Amino acid sequence: MEAHIKANQHAAKDGQHNRARMLISCPDGPGIVAAVSRFLHEHGANIVQSDQYTMNPEGGMFFMRIEFDLPELDANLRQLQVDFAQVAANFNMEWKITTVSRKKKLAIFVSKEDHCLVELLWQWQAGDLDAEIAMVVSNHNDMREYVESFGIPYHHFPVTADTKKEAEQRQLEIVGDDIDVIILARYMQIISPTFIEHYRNRIINIHHSFLPAFVGGKPYQQAYERGVKIIGATAHYVTEELDGGPIIEQDVQRVSHRDDVTELKRIGRTIERVVLARAVKWHIEDRILVHQNKTVVFN
Amino acid sequence: MEAHIKANQHAAKDGQHNRARMLISCPDGPGIVAAVSRFLHEHGANIVQSDQYTMNPEGGMFFMRIEFDLPELDANLRQLQVDFAQVAANFNMEWKITTVSRKKKLAIFVSKEDHCLVELLWQWQAGDLDAEIAMVVSNHNDMREYVESFGIPYHHFPVTADTKKEAEQRQLEIVGDDIDVIILARYMQIISPTFIEHYRNRIINIHHSFLPAFVGGKPYQQAYERGVKIIGATAHYVTEELDGGPIIEQDVQRVSHRDDVTELKRIGRTIERVVLARAVKWHIEDRILVHQNKTVVFN
Amino acid sequence: MEAHIKANQHAAKDGQHNRARMLISCPDGPGIVAAVSRFLHEHGANIVQSDQYTMNPEGGMFFMRIEFDLPELDANLRQLQVDFAQVAANFNMEWKITTVSRKKKLAIFVSKEDHCLVELLWQWQAGDLDAEIAMVVSNHNDMREYVESFGIPYHHFPVTADTKKEAEQRQLEIVGDDIDVIILARYMQIISPTFIEHYRNRIINIHHSFLPAFVGGKPYQQAYERGVKIIGATAHYVTEELDGGPIIEQDVQRVSHRDDVTELKRIGRTIERVVLARAVKWHIEDRILVHQNKTVVFN
Amino acid sequence: MEAHIKANQHAAKDGQHNRARMLISCPDGPGIVAAVSRFLHEHGANIVQSDQYTMNPEGGMFFMRIEFDLPELDANLRQLQVDFAQVAANFNMEWKITTVSRKKKLAIFVSKEDHCLVELLWQWQAGDLDAEIAMVVSNHNDMREYVESFGIPYHHFPVTADTKKEAEQRQLEIVGDDIDVIILARYMQIISPTFIEHYRNRIINIHHSFLPAFVGGKPYQQAYERGVKIIGATAHYVTEELDGGPIIEQDVQRVSHRDDVTELKRIGRTIERVVLARAVKWHIEDRILVHQNKTVVFN
Repeated sequence: MEAHIKANQHAAKDGQHNRARMLISCPDGPGIVAAVSRFLHEHGANIVQSDQYTMNPEGGMFFMRIEFDLPELDANLRQLQVDFAQVAANFNMEWKITTVSRKKKLAIFVSKEDHCLVELLWQWQAGDLDAEIAMVVSNHNDMREYVESFGIPYHHFPVTADTKKEAEQRQLEIVGDDIDVIILARYMQIISPTFIEHYRNRIINIHHSFLPAFVGGKPYQQAYERGVKIIGATAHYVTEELDGGPIIEQDVQRVSHRDDVTELKRIGRTIERVVLARAVKWHIEDRILVHQNKTVVFN
Repeated sequence: MEAHIKANQHAAKDGQHNRARMLISCPDGPGIVAAVSRFLHEHGANIVQSDQYTMNPEGGMFFMRIEFDLPELDANLRQLQVDFAQVAANFNMEWKITTVSRKKKLAIFVSKEDHCLVELLWQWQAGDLDAEIAMVVSNHNDMREYVESFGIPYHHFPVTADTKKEAEQRQLEIVGDDIDVIILARYMQIISPTFIEHYRNRIINIHHSFLPAFVGGKPYQQAYERGVKIIGATAHYVTEELDGGPIIEQDVQRVSHRDDVTELKRIGRTIERVVLARAVKWHIEDRILVHQNKTVVFN
Repeated sequence: MEAHIKANQHAAKDGQHNRARMLISCPDGPGIVAAVSRFLHEHGANIVQSDQYTMNPEGGMFFMRIEFDLPELDANLRQLQVDFAQVAANFNMEWKITTVSRKKKLAIFVSKEDHCLVELLWQWQAGDLDAEIAMVVSNHNDMREYVESFGIPYHHFPVTADTKKEAEQRQLEIVGDDIDVIILARYMQIISPTFIEHYRNRIINIHHSFLPAFVGGKPYQQAYERGVKIIGATAHYVTEELDGGPIIEQDVQRVSHRDDVTELKRIGRTIERVVLARAVKWHIEDRILVHQNKTVVFN
Repeated sequence: MEAHIKANQHAAKDGQHNRARMLISCPDGPGIVAAVSRFLHEHGANIVQSDQYTMNPEGGMFFMRIEFDLPELDANLRQLQVDFAQVAANFNMEWKITTVSRKKKLAIFVSKEDHCLVELLWQWQAGDLDAEIAMVVSNHNDMREYVESFGIPYHHFPVTADTKKEAEQRQLEIVGDDIDVIILARYMQIISPTFIEHYRNRIINIHHSFLPAFVGGKPYQQAYERGVKIIGATAHYVTEELDGGPIIEQDVQRVSHRDDVTELKRIGRTIERVVLARAVKWHIEDRILVHQNKTVVFN
C-alpha cells in the first residue's frame, strides 16, 4: 500500500508543470474565441485542448474551457491573469485560471456506508484522482482506522438533533477556506443553508437514485415499490433544495422483478461508486461549469 | 411491400401449431410446481420453457409461465382447461392458457407523431410482431393513407372537449371485445376511467420519460430544464393514475448539455420506438403478469 | 406521407442560411487556434461552435471543426476560401469549408434486407437526416415500389459473378461525382478497390457485429457459436481491407443464452439501424475527420 | 475493518440453512420437469426458484437450476442424493446438489495490478460475495501486507521461465482439491494444460477486452490502434485455447478518440472489476452451467 501512496505524491504528471486551465462563462457575442485565443498566443501560450459551447447562438450564454501550456508558468501566471482581466472585462466574463501542478484539496464526508469512500481512496491511490485528500469527516467513528492507514486525518463529529448546529460549526472551522471541494460520500446528514452558501458549487453529493425520480429518503425502497426496470445514481452539487442541485453525472443499470430492495441496494452501490468518482474527477480537472441550475461538463 | 405482408400471413410459425402457454398467479405454497408439471406430463404435454418467480418464499405470491407442446392441441385444449380448473382451485390460482397459433389482435391508437406507429408496422411486416393489427384509431386523419397501404383499417375520430365523450363511446364500440391489446403509440388524449376499466391491463402506453421522473406533459422540456444527463422512455399499462400504471419496460440513452429540447426529442423518439415495441412483443407472447401495480416479465 | 416529404424540402433550417463549417487537420504547433479564430473574426464571421482535438501535444496531429455564421455567406464564401488558403499554407493544413444550406447528396445501396434502408428513409422524412437522397441502388428489385413511393429514383443492377465488373462500372457512372456519400445499407456485395478509391472516405458500411470481432460473413452465427453475452454493430468507412476501415460508430446490446441466431438477428437489426443512422447523420453534418485508419468524431 | 470481517463470518444468511440448489444438464425429452418437481415434492422440498432452458426443443439439451428448501437439510441431504440418482439415471442427467450454508472456497491469483483483487475483497467484506477466500496466490510479493490485513493467507511463488513448471506444481499442491474456484484476477501468467485439466470449468479469468476482439496481450493498445468506439471486458472459464474458453459475462463502456491508451486502461479497470465480480458471484451461487464451449447463466 505504501508503494501506492508514494507513487501518488509525485508533484505533477510529467510534462504538465507548465499546464494551466482557463474557464470562462459570459454572454455570447462575436469575437470571444478570437480574442481569447489571440491573447493566449500573444502571451506565448500553446492551446492543448479547447472546448466551447454556446447555449443559444442569439443572445445566449457562452462557455469555454481551455487547457494550455505556458513556458515558465509559475513565473508568468500572475501577469497573465492581470492582463487577461482586461479581455474579460470587454466581454463581461466570469473566469478563472487554475494550474495543473497545484493539486486540489478534498474533504470527504461519510457516515456508515463505506463503498463510496473506499472507491475514492482506491482511485486516489491508483493515481486516477489527481488530488490531495486533506481529511475525512464523519458523524461516526467506524472508518477511522481504515482512513488513517492511508495517512489521512479523520475527524469525528457525532451529530444529534441537539448538537447538529454546533457540530456543523466545528466542521466549518476544520474544513476552512483552503478546501477546494467537499464530497458527500453517502453522508446521511442534511447540510444547512449556511454551510452550503460557504461552499457554493463546491459540495458534491451522490444521491442513490436516478434524479429527479425518488428524491429524499430510501430511494431504493421507492424504486422497488414503483417497479422500475432500471435504477440509477446521480452526482450533483448541493443547493438549498433537497436533491435539487445541478446534476453533474448520472448512470443506470437494468434490474428486474427478481431484484428485491437488498439486491437493488447491492447493484446500486456499484453505480453510486462509479458516478461519484466520475463527478469528482471532472471537478478536479476543472471540467464543470455551473449556470443557473445546470452544468456544462466538458469531458 | 406486398411480399412482406403476405409473408406475415402464414398461420403459425412452423412447428408451433401445437404450442400453448400457461400463465399462473397464486399465493405461494409447497407443491405448486410439482402439481402443475405433473398435470401437464400426465396429459401428454411436453414443457418447452418454464419460468417461475416467488415474490417472497414465506407467504408471498407465486408466478409462473410455461410454454408446452400438446399433440392435437386444438382437439385437446378444451379438456385440458376443464381438467386444470381443479388443480387451479386447489392452489387458488388465477390462470389462463393461450395458444401460439391464435394470433393476438391489436388496435393501435395514434395522434400526429408517427414514429411509434411506423416502428410497430415495420416490425410487424418484418415478422417480428407475431400478431394481427386489426385497426388503427386516430384523432387525426394524417396517417390514413400510410396505414391503409398495409391493408389495415383506419378509423378517424376527431376529439374536441365537446365530442370527447362521444368519440370514446364510438371507439369502444369499434374496438369491441375482440381486441386483445390496445397500444397508445403516442396517442395524446387522456383515456377515461370507463374505457380503462373495460381493457384492464390490456392498454399499453409509451411515455416519453424515464418514469416516475417527468410525469405528465412535455417531459423532454422538463428533462432539459432539470439538466439530466440521461433520458428515457417507459412502456406501461394504463391505469386511472396518469403515467402511474405498472411499468413493463424502460430504456435510456446518455445526453449532454449540448442537446437542446429538439435534440432530446429526436434522441427520445428512437428510445420510445424500441421500448414500446419490446413491451408489445412481450404482451403478445404472454410474458407479462401484473400484480398490484407492478409487472413480472418473463423474458 | 406527402406532407412529410414536402416538409423536408424547405431549403435550410431557419436562420442557418449563413452558416458554414470548417474542418481542419494539420500537424500540431503553436498558434493554430489563434490564427484561425482571428481570421474568422476579421472576416466578420461569428463562431457558433468549435471543437478541437490534439492527438498528442508534442509533435502530434491537430484536428478542428468550427461552425460559424458569416453575413451574406453565399456572396462572401469564395473570397473567404481564397483568403484562408494562405492561413492554411502556413500550418500545412488539409481543410475544407462546407455550407449548411447546401444539402449533401446520398446514394443508398441495398440488397434484400430492408431495415437499414427503411430507417434512413423514415429519419429522412421525419427531418432528422438533413440531406437529399439522390438514389437507391440495388442488386435486387424488391424495394423498387417502396422507394419510388418517396419520389426517389431506384436503380436495379443485377450482379452475378460474370456481370459484377460491368455492373459496378454502370453503378460508378450513375452515382457519378456529384454524390457526397454512398451508404451500404446491408448491401451484400464486395466493393472493388477501384470503386473504393473513387469514393475514398465517402462510403459508409454497416457491419452487423462489434468489430473487429466477427469480421466477414454470418457474424450473428459466429457470435452465437462463440457464446458472447453482448452483440453489436459497427458503421465504418469502406477500405480495401474487408471490414477493416475506420470505425465511425458502434453500439451494443446485451443478449443471453436464450437468444438463438434468429433472435440475435432480430435484436441486431435495431442496433444496425441506429448505428448506421448516427454515422450518416455525423457524416452529413461534417463531424467526422479521418486520420490514418481512425476517425475523430466531434459529436 | 474488523467489524466487516466479523459480519461476514456468520454461517448462512438467515433462513437459508435449509436451502439447497440442484443443477441439471441432460438431453431434452418429455417429462423431465415433471419428474424432478414431483421428486422434490414427494421428498418434502419446497421449490423457491426454478429456471430452465432447452437449447432446442427437438433433440437438444436441457438445463435446469432449482433452489429449494428441505426441512432438516443436513440430516436428509444424503438420502435425497441417493434417491435422486435413480431419477437422474432415467434421463441420463449430469447433476449436482449444493447447499447454500456451505460456503465455497476461493483462491485468488494476482500479479501486480490490484484493482480486481481489491474489488473482490471489498465485495467480500461488504457481504456481497458469500464465500470463503481461502488464499491469495501471486508471482509477486506486493500485495502481501494488504491481503494479510484481512486475515487471508498469501502465497508468493516467483515465476521465471526456468521455475515456471515447478512454481505451478507447488501452486497445485497448495490449492489442492478443496478449492471450489480459482480466480485469475489479472494474473499475468499462462496456465498450463495440466493445471487447467485439474480445475476444469473452475478457473475464471478476466480478460481486458470484449472477446473475441483483441485476444492475447495488450488489448487496450490493440483497441486504441483499431479505433473502436466501445471497450469492454470478458470473464470466462479458462481452457487450453488462449482467451477462448466459455464466456460467463461481458460488459462495455463507450470511449472516444480523446481516450488514449492510458485512459482506456483507466476506464477498463472499472469494467474489469465489475465483470469479474459478477462472474464470481454467479459461480458461487451455482448459476452457471457449461455446455461445450458456452455457458448457460441463470441470473
